[in-house]
Amino acid sequence: MRKLIKNGTVVTAADIYEADVLIEDGKIAAIGTDLKSEGVEVIDATGRYLFPGGIDPHTHLDMPFGGTVTRDDFETGTVAAAFGGTTTIIDFCLTNKGEPLGNAIQTWHEKSKDKAVIDYSFHLMIGEMNDDVLRELPQVIHEEGITSFKVFMAYKNVFQADDGTLYRTLLAAKELGALVMVHAENGDVIDYLTRQALKEGNTDPIYHALTRPPEIEGEATGRACQLTGLANSQLYVVHVSCADAVEKITEARNKGLDVWGETCPQYLVLDRSYLERPNFEGAKYVWSPPLREKWHQDALWNALKNGQLQTIGSDQCSFDFKGQKELGRGDFTKIPNGGPTIEDRMSILFSEGVKQGRITLNQFVDITSTRIAKLFGLFPQKGTIAVGTDADIVIFDANVERVISRETHHMAVDYNAFEGMKVIGEPVSVLCRGEFVVRNRQFVGKAGYGSYLKRKKYGEDMKHQQDSIPVQ
Amino acid sequence: MRKLIKNGTVVTAADIYEADVLIEDGKIAAIGTDLKSEGVEVIDATGRYLFPGGIDPHTHLDMPFGGTVTRDDFETGTVAAAFGGTTTIIDFCLTNKGEPLGNAIQTWHEKSKDKAVIDYSFHLMIGEMNDDVLRELPQVIHEEGITSFKVFMAYKNVFQADDGTLYRTLLAAKELGALVMVHAENGDVIDYLTRQALKEGNTDPIYHALTRPPEIEGEATGRACQLTGLANSQLYVVHVSCADAVEKITEARNKGLDVWGETCPQYLVLDRSYLERPNFEGAKYVWSPPLREKWHQDALWNALKNGQLQTIGSDQCSFDFKGQKELGRGDFTKIPNGGPTIEDRMSILFSEGVKQGRITLNQFVDITSTRIAKLFGLFPQKGTIAVGTDADIVIFDANVERVISRETHHMAVDYNAFEGMKVIGEPVSVLCRGEFVVRNRQFVGKAGYGSYLKRKKYGEDMKHQQDSIPVQ
Amino acid sequence: MRKLIKNGTVVTAADIYEADVLIEDGKIAAIGTDLKSEGVEVIDATGRYLFPGGIDPHTHLDMPFGGTVTRDDFETGTVAAAFGGTTTIIDFCLTNKGEPLGNAIQTWHEKSKDKAVIDYSFHLMIGEMNDDVLRELPQVIHEEGITSFKVFMAYKNVFQADDGTLYRTLLAAKELGALVMVHAENGDVIDYLTRQALKEGNTDPIYHALTRPPEIEGEATGRACQLTGLANSQLYVVHVSCADAVEKITEARNKGLDVWGETCPQYLVLDRSYLERPNFEGAKYVWSPPLREKWHQDALWNALKNGQLQTIGSDQCSFDFKGQKELGRGDFTKIPNGGPTIEDRMSILFSEGVKQGRITLNQFVDITSTRIAKLFGLFPQKGTIAVGTDADIVIFDANVERVISRETHHMAVDYNAFEGMKVIGEPVSVLCRGEFVVRNRQFVGKAGYGSYLKRKKYGEDMKHQQDSIPVQ
Amino acid sequence: MRKLIKNGTVVTAADIYEADVLIEDGKIAAIGTDLKSEGVEVIDATGRYLFPGGIDPHTHLDMPFGGTVTRDDFETGTVAAAFGGTTTIIDFCLTNKGEPLGNAIQTWHEKSKDKAVIDYSFHLMIGEMNDDVLRELPQVIHEEGITSFKVFMAYKNVFQADDGTLYRTLLAAKELGALVMVHAENGDVIDYLTRQALKEGNTDPIYHALTRPPEIEGEATGRACQLTGLANSQLYVVHVSCADAVEKITEARNKGLDVWGETCPQYLVLDRSYLERPNFEGAKYVWSPPLREKWHQDALWNALKNGQLQTIGSDQCSFDFKGQKELGRGDFTKIPNGGPTIEDRMSILFSEGVKQGRITLNQFVDITSTRIAKLFGLFPQKGTIAVGTDADIVIFDANVERVISRETHHMAVDYNAFEGMKVIGEPVSVLCRGEFVVRNRQFVGKAGYGSYLKRKKYGEDMKHQQDSIPVQ
Repeated sequence: MRKLIKNGTVVTAADIYEADVLIEDGKIAAIGTDLKSEGVEVIDATGRYLFPGGIDPHTHLDMPFGGTVTRDDFETGTVAAAFGGTTTIIDFCLTNKGEPLGNAIQTWHEKSKDKAVIDYSFHLMIGEMNDDVLRELPQVIHEEGITSFKVFMAYKNVFQADDGTLYRTLLAAKELGALVMVHAENGDVIDYLTRQALKEGNTDPIYHALTRPPEIEGEATGRACQLTGLANSQLYVVHVSCADAVEKITEARNKGLDVWGETCPQYLVLDRSYLERPNFEGAKYVWSPPLREKWHQDALWNALKNGQLQTIGSDQCSFDFKGQKELGRGDFTKIPNGGPTIEDRMSILFSEGVKQGRITLNQFVDITSTRIAKLFGLFPQKGTIAVGTDADIVIFDANVERVISRETHHMAVDYNAFEGMKVIGEPVSVLCRGEFVVRNRQFVGKAGYGSYLKRKKYGEDMKHQQDSIPVQ
Repeated sequence: MRKLIKNGTVVTAADIYEADVLIEDGKIAAIGTDLKSEGVEVIDATGRYLFPGGIDPHTHLDMPFGGTVTRDDFETGTVAAAFGGTTTIIDFCLTNKGEPLGNAIQTWHEKSKDKAVIDYSFHLMIGEMNDDVLRELPQVIHEEGITSFKVFMAYKNVFQADDGTLYRTLLAAKELGALVMVHAENGDVIDYLTRQALKEGNTDPIYHALTRPPEIEGEATGRACQLTGLANSQLYVVHVSCADAVEKITEARNKGLDVWGETCPQYLVLDRSYLERPNFEGAKYVWSPPLREKWHQDALWNALKNGQLQTIGSDQCSFDFKGQKELGRGDFTKIPNGGPTIEDRMSILFSEGVKQGRITLNQFVDITSTRIAKLFGLFPQKGTIAVGTDADIVIFDANVERVISRETHHMAVDYNAFEGMKVIGEPVSVLCRGEFVVRNRQFVGKAGYGSYLKRKKYGEDMKHQQDSIPVQ
Repeated sequence: MRKLIKNGTVVTAADIYEADVLIEDGKIAAIGTDLKSEGVEVIDATGRYLFPGGIDPHTHLDMPFGGTVTRDDFETGTVAAAFGGTTTIIDFCLTNKGEPLGNAIQTWHEKSKDKAVIDYSFHLMIGEMNDDVLRELPQVIHEEGITSFKVFMAYKNVFQADDGTLYRTLLAAKELGALVMVHAENGDVIDYLTRQALKEGNTDPIYHALTRPPEIEGEATGRACQLTGLANSQLYVVHVSCADAVEKITEARNKGLDVWGETCPQYLVLDRSYLERPNFEGAKYVWSPPLREKWHQDALWNALKNGQLQTIGSDQCSFDFKGQKELGRGDFTKIPNGGPTIEDRMSILFSEGVKQGRITLNQFVDITSTRIAKLFGLFPQKGTIAVGTDADIVIFDANVERVISRETHHMAVDYNAFEGMKVIGEPVSVLCRGEFVVRNRQFVGKAGYGSYLKRKKYGEDMKHQQDSIPVQ
Repeated sequence: MRKLIKNGTVVTAADIYEADVLIEDGKIAAIGTDLKSEGVEVIDATGRYLFPGGIDPHTHLDMPFGGTVTRDDFETGTVAAAFGGTTTIIDFCLTNKGEPLGNAIQTWHEKSKDKAVIDYSFHLMIGEMNDDVLRELPQVIHEEGITSFKVFMAYKNVFQADDGTLYRTLLAAKELGALVMVHAENGDVIDYLTRQALKEGNTDPIYHALTRPPEIEGEATGRACQLTGLANSQLYVVHVSCADAVEKITEARNKGLDVWGETCPQYLVLDRSYLERPNFEGAKYVWSPPLREKWHQDALWNALKNGQLQTIGSDQCSFDFKGQKELGRGDFTKIPNGGPTIEDRMSILFSEGVKQGRITLNQFVDITSTRIAKLFGLFPQKGTIAVGTDADIVIFDANVERVISRETHHMAVDYNAFEGMKVIGEPVSVLCRGEFVVRNRQFVGKAGYGSYLKRKKYGEDMKHQQDSIPVQ
């Protein structure tokens, strides 16, 4: 069955134009003025933007953390993502030191199977680089299509890897064609600061932020960049929250290093003062890295505008306030880190970015989708609206004003981090591979529709462009 | 008559995909897989790239300079441009202090009328800002559609404006919606250095470079950036030749200033040693700013890759070696500045950039066309391949290897600055508004086909995106 | 007659120690523990610091400006200087374009002759560099001992030189062994901004500051530094007032350039809000560069601490409020620029610097005296307390608290810029070449005692150290 | 018995002047012109410089390392130091994790007792910061007078501390009044690189340098600076070898951080190519950090000139080539790190610094003595020539030319790292507390003469200056 989206305004990372879009077999078959509508299902998109489906490069669904498990799994999480305009997620597959990587990947396949309503892929955590891990990596890349590895510089004694592992992962990634992602905070110093805070009786949520100051993130970001330069490798810094880290990424890029940075919606619109909300409500706003003083937001917006940061991820990692966040009453270190952001990632960037004149529409598409597809080996199948690509399309009403709230959101979690925030713009309908997942603001998809995406190697496209034609 | 370009690989600033492109009434009507070919002229582009027609933001055609006139006028210049894949040029309209701007614009209309084979527009030089000029500017913008003003910081006692004029132009541009362009070299210091060189009997072409050191360009670039920041205005630095200037532009952009930089093909592949060629041949390589030591080339390429520089212009300004460049025998200050570059701008960037793995194909398109269209108010009519836009298309063979030479070039001038240089890739056919100008490497256009383009205000699109929908 | 200062605490740029200081023939003959006091006049300095006499590198005494003349001449000015602990000044000799430099120097000798109560020397303004000036310079250096030249980048159509003159002066200074001093503000932009302010009816003193924003000083400072680098010469930036300029000086020094910076007491303790004082009192605080927003003070203090700035000058240039500053009522551009600061330069630096823990005592001495002597060719005759040097000594009470006020100051002018400011520390007695000028807070010197100092070439000492021994 | 040094040229960090110096009871009693010589021993110093005795802030005498022990102990090491003009050393007391600090200090007292011929003091290594260590520190400071703590960021599994220990040490130092010293190299990455090199059969000495690239030092230096800023503490980076580290220190200081940097003679005059010398001779040049490519030397000299680096230490750590360095044949990781530099530290800085015009004489004294005394709580007892201070004086012939060689050196070790290097200048005689240790180039001191120095707290002097008078 073919579909024809009529009269929408197509937006890509480069273009804006009014056109009809014809979908056949889940792919975009034609884009044109006044395409014929016989024998096709016509969807009217007059006055709407058509965006490429968003790609969320940073989710944690069905993830165990600190003795509990995130509230949203691959079903509720992807339903919410779809409502927010996202049609692909890349989730972090956590590994255990000493166990084969394949086991962890298998676990993640099981978590996601028959659940996801949109397409998905995995990043792989590297906890410790050694010869066993090194031996397993080629298979991870070639058979699983996992071409991005995550290294944690924080969470001492849990996820934290030492600089030797980070460096070896950078070397391996360079050789094998993968992108290294880092959580950049100095875990050793955080470890001391948190223990010291508890010792001094400072147990409230605000101490989560006070024991992870921005200098700590700036330091680790700079360190990762310098090791990347030494390894002549490639780096993607996740969830950049502060000016300190932006500065280090900028410095590295100016030197010509292949370094990229992601921020998250929470860092763009929320600030540290939220952690001081009474009745333990501050716990809802516990992320790592933590929310920062308000002036950092300007630095992040400026970085998105200038291309010093290139993407936005949600870092979705939701826990109920009741029963989960509450585990940290009396001890902020026991508050599960993270929050529900998968649904509002794109709306917030559109409303606060485009509508406030901070970024252009083309940048919006690049930041939420195109650049992510390119960095993570999904382009051009994903990440754009162009002939031959997957018909992952968001039909977006750019004028509606609405209020974000747990009353209306689709995540399973019992609060919304942006509760009460007014935003302009909303996805009206969302298609994944030509099928509606959301239609006129109603869920019409189904669990298991989403398919697992094997991804291309990092840098492969550029090599092709250099070598030969035709290139796709 | 409709045309259908079959099976090409469309490249935009964001995308790469194989598709057919249908042209109707000079515009792109549809892009699709397997579009029907009945009743249309079919052009086979199998194995070819389809690029948006290049936009050359920096040409000097039919321009008087130092008692002579550039060899290429709007006819020969635009023919050569077309062979190189360029379908739009923006030429610099020079003004005389004390005379109405309108007179100069009128002169430029006369120079170009019935000559250009591709579309064209004008930038306007501001030699001195005063109340008369200020009064005339709104009309220049609204009636002539000229939304970019050029200020010279060099050429003392000729074009050079003082910092007061530069600053006032920045203020006026901000208010009226225009972009200020600067030739950034410190003219006062150059004036002394050249006079001193002559005094010391240093008259050879190489002294042109030695009396305009990179520090002088870095200084003026930094100065222009700082005045832009003070005026909260927008700046475009033309023909950036060296690391010193890149550094200043980068610094300004990192602070969030609205500053842009252009380089030229000659700075990317030629170097200062060319000015030392025997038999006065060095004179062929006299540009201002001059060619630099070779290591600066790396800084420029890195800047294009990282987005510190965003565009490439030719700074086409051709003089015959015989009879024109020779005017400077025995006195390098009498060598007419400039060279023939309009034809090879895109080929050089493709061959040395994409084929050498320094930039991506998408960046190539952005740098040669899309970004220029956006900065100078021509987008989306020009600058991309998308439904509804002008069918300015280059059918490009990315595999052919050829040698640049005056024997084969189409400029009127008697030498080629890149003589003997091997490049990979060549425009095979070039369409402007749906009509072939070059077809299978033959000129098929006609003088006068090119039409004058009135341009939109700077920043207008972004305001629209912010305000309302639909946006085009 | 010999003098013995007993039991003081000698402070130099390097040392602090308790000792007796013996003076013979105007020079320091011995420093020791328990020196014998027979046959000498004994001065008890128990509990006092002994500082080297201050050197004020930046004064304008008896100077015509804007149709009036500074209130303090070489007599009242040097009396006040002495009360403040200063025993040497270097005044700016203003030249007129087109006239021989010698004439101007002659005029300055006449102004100072039989007036100064402490030693003095001259800097020489270069308004325009040309062959006549160049021819005269060697004589200026060798016969007059004037080894520092001042170039103004501001005061358009009055003092302002263009970049050609600045650059040529840097070249000449390098060759001849002199130090180039710049007043670094962009005069062209200021010219426009002031005219524009008046046009808009903005005539109050505060507009003096608003039309000379810090960016303008940063720009000019950066420009001067870059030209210095190009000329491989040496530069001293006078009256640095803001973070923007500090940043440029720091950048230049980090690159290894021979660049130095001076600040003034007014920039360290007063701020822009003073220009808004009612009843035209703001006019008292009109300096160029202007007072800045308060946060710039931190940048200046930090720069003194870190050695990014190295000296403090008063920029003494006093005009009565009545009859002189008042010339600018209704037109801030007619307010004579400058203020009375010669007397409190050292007290303010001591009280706000040393006593607030921002700089050390050694730094205090270096900043007010030693470094200045070294930069301007007076060391070691001036600038330290060491055997064989001129006995220019300040006996300083570091504990007394007092209030600065026109009621008690010794300048001729009718107001004090620091009126009401509490400071800790006061010069009790001041000797110049072994003779008391101030004794127990009473003036005991006489007009004409001060002698004119011919200075050594810039860099001469370092060459000696490199070449031979003994070195003095 | 009193001594009178006649007619020398006294040089301090601020001054240069010819004078007689009278010594009584080991202290300087008077400095003067023509001091009386009756009843005193007269030493003629005509045509000689008198420098304050050098202070070597970085020695490893009688130190176990890698299964062997340094060849020079407190006797041979201090004899050699004295010949080089050094009259005080500060040696590193190594501690063992888990053992009381007091034990290690006791061990070091035993090593040095009855051995040293000049004065000495200790720094204390902190291997792991914990509550036990924290409890012991006040006593270390108050009773032992040890006010500087060394933390290693390299030597994994041996000396290396994690960032938590570094940070806690910075906090403790701030609170207690001590200076934290870091060996700044990333030990984790080095650990991998060295193991990898061995695995690949790269066992020669040059691999020592190749597995410790400058980026690794730059990274660790930046990290230490950032933690210092966060802790609002004070940092001293030992043995800075490369531009990368200088850049980080400069950045920190420009921000106002209390960060200092030391370099060593080997980094100023030797380079990486020495490690490639045949017959395993490269092993003689194995230091950590390693020798760098030659261009780094310019960066270090520039940093000394500009005050970005402030001191020079020897990092004396000598091993015989025969039997010790040779342990690393076939495995560069087994080459004991370090070399014999204690004797030539000052001569090299004088000859290559002052005589080459890179630094001034005053800077020479500051870098080798005064600044070190001030940073490490020895000033003014040590570090200058001034009345009341210890008579630690070097009588220096600045004109003699000589060749450094193991044939003539006084260290116990069997080679000289600077073998064959010509230097200008030599200490002729050296006094420590008024007694000759070296006289006319002959050793006349005695083992055990040197006394242990308890040092003042970091920052104590500045507090005194701020608070009260008199200050010493």
